[in-house]
Amino acid sequence: MPIDPSKVGLEGGPVLRSWTAKDCLLYALGVGAGTDELEFSSEKNQKVLPTFAVIVGGGGVPYREIGSFNPALVVHGEEAIEVYQPIPPEGTVKSQGRIGGIYDKAKGALVVLESISRDAKTQEPLFKTVRGLFLRGEGGFGGERGPSGPRNVPPDRKPDAEVRYGTRPEQALLYRLSGDMNPLHSDPEFARRGGFDRPILHGLCTYGFTGRALLHTLCGSDPARFRSMEGRFSKPVYPGESLIVSMWVDGGEAIFRTTNDDGDIVLDQGRCTFQV
Amino acid sequence: MPIDPSKVGLEGGPVLRSWTAKDCLLYALGVGAGTDELEFSSEKNQKVLPTFAVIVGGGGVPYREIGSFNPALVVHGEEAIEVYQPIPPEGTVKSQGRIGGIYDKAKGALVVLESISRDAKTQEPLFKTVRGLFLRGEGGFGGERGPSGPRNVPPDRKPDAEVRYGTRPEQALLYRLSGDMNPLHSDPEFARRGGFDRPILHGLCTYGFTGRALLHTLCGSDPARFRSMEGRFSKPVYPGESLIVSMWVDGGEAIFRTTNDDGDIVLDQGRCTFQV
Repeated sequence: MPIDPSKVGLEGGPVLRSWTAKDCLLYALGVGAGTDELEFSSEKNQKVLPTFAVIVGGGGVPYREIGSFNPALVVHGEEAIEVYQPIPPEGTVKSQGRIGGIYDKAKGALVVLESISRDAKTQEPLFKTVRGLFLRGEGGFGGERGPSGPRNVPPDRKPDAEVRYGTRPEQALLYRLSGDMNPLHSDPEFARRGGFDRPILHGLCTYGFTGRALLHTLCGSDPARFRSMEGRFSKPVYPGESLIVSMWVDGGEAIFRTTNDDGDIVLDQGRCTFQV
Repeated sequence: MPIDPSKVGLEGGPVLRSWTAKDCLLYALGVGAGTDELEFSSEKNQKVLPTFAVIVGGGGVPYREIGSFNPALVVHGEEAIEVYQPIPPEGTVKSQGRIGGIYDKAKGALVVLESISRDAKTQEPLFKTVRGLFLRGEGGFGGERGPSGPRNVPPDRKPDAEVRYGTRPEQALLYRLSGDMNPLHSDPEFARRGGFDRPILHGLCTYGFTGRALLHTLCGSDPARFRSMEGRFSKPVYPGESLIVSMWVDGGEAIFRTTNDDGDIVLDQGRCTFQV
């Protein structure tokens, strides 16, 4: 059964997901927070990185209903989050998902998965995640091509801010303990079969490092000022590489992109909104 | 009520303790295992570091019965483990504890806590831990002074093997997620009140790094060949310092000590036994 574009709009959930203060600390360390960011990496006056939404959010999406595809050929293309209030260090969310879009990109299908997570007790919306998965080899089913052309193009000037973070050789081994145990990020043999020299970093780990840079630079490290973040994964990162986050700021909005040591863009077409 | 030496021999427990493969991975990363030690730091053909015994063992010791003391003045003095078979990546142990000794060291009391852990299903002994706690200010109760003088003195020659490991500035933040959340290892203000410039590394983290060095050097990285390890904590380590483990080998026994960058001994009078 090929990909079925009539599934757009299909809803799923709700599903419940709980987390503890320790889960948040493990995530913070996994995306590089250390002794300079103790409010995120220790439980004293603990705050939670806004990008933790990608760990505990995203639930309830009925993505198995869209047709059959080879999971080994799925690439994480894009990730967006909207955060409506600071994520508490421990809590439970009730997430409801929706197939937000299915596009025929010829070489593959782009499937957009949306999920809104509410505090399970108060029912207040906490955050929304929008994930774009590219299913290689699944194009040509006759669907809409969808939006094309680059978004969030930086203005023609030097970045207004740049932050450089090193990643560690063991970064992926640590990050994966937050939930995504795909051996692509740990097993050299598995990574080689996938066409990589060695295990690659999780795209969402790069996303988390980038989110830290945005939070500290644009929001004075205050998660309450962080509103949204979106970006497109454009190149794999190997654990141990540096990540340089460049930002072009205009009021409560910043266009950003993340490059590696060689200047290759690894997270592209980024946009972050925040409270000035 | 002062320390009561008549409590020697008092038994406690059993208590149950379970762990998962992820707990073992988190511990391995916490004591510095990385991409060169994937059998310990990932779940593929997963093995468990023998020193993980200090995390899941030690239960059932009735140490609250020995009298009243100020927990803020307790110093971890010594730690010994005996491992009877490789620790499985997930399991449950039933631990029984015993007050192994109470010694009057004038400036304080040395309390020795023993615990044996058995596989909860098979009842087979898995490992034993012996922890020496020094209760500062609790000496002078009139007990035995106990064994004195240095143990495990290295022979008068250069070490037969040396291993150097770097620790990371955030090492203690990661290690503490394995259970010992004492703010002495994370909170600069708390550490200053305790008389330290900044948070110190857990003694048992140094112990774990040292155990890795012993395992890889003496046992060909095979936990089944690792029999026992004992050592005395002699100086605090700050996260970010290097640890150099020096070993003097004689058959199935090695005397060892661990020093920091300055050559100060941080884990002293060490002895490891193993299957040749």
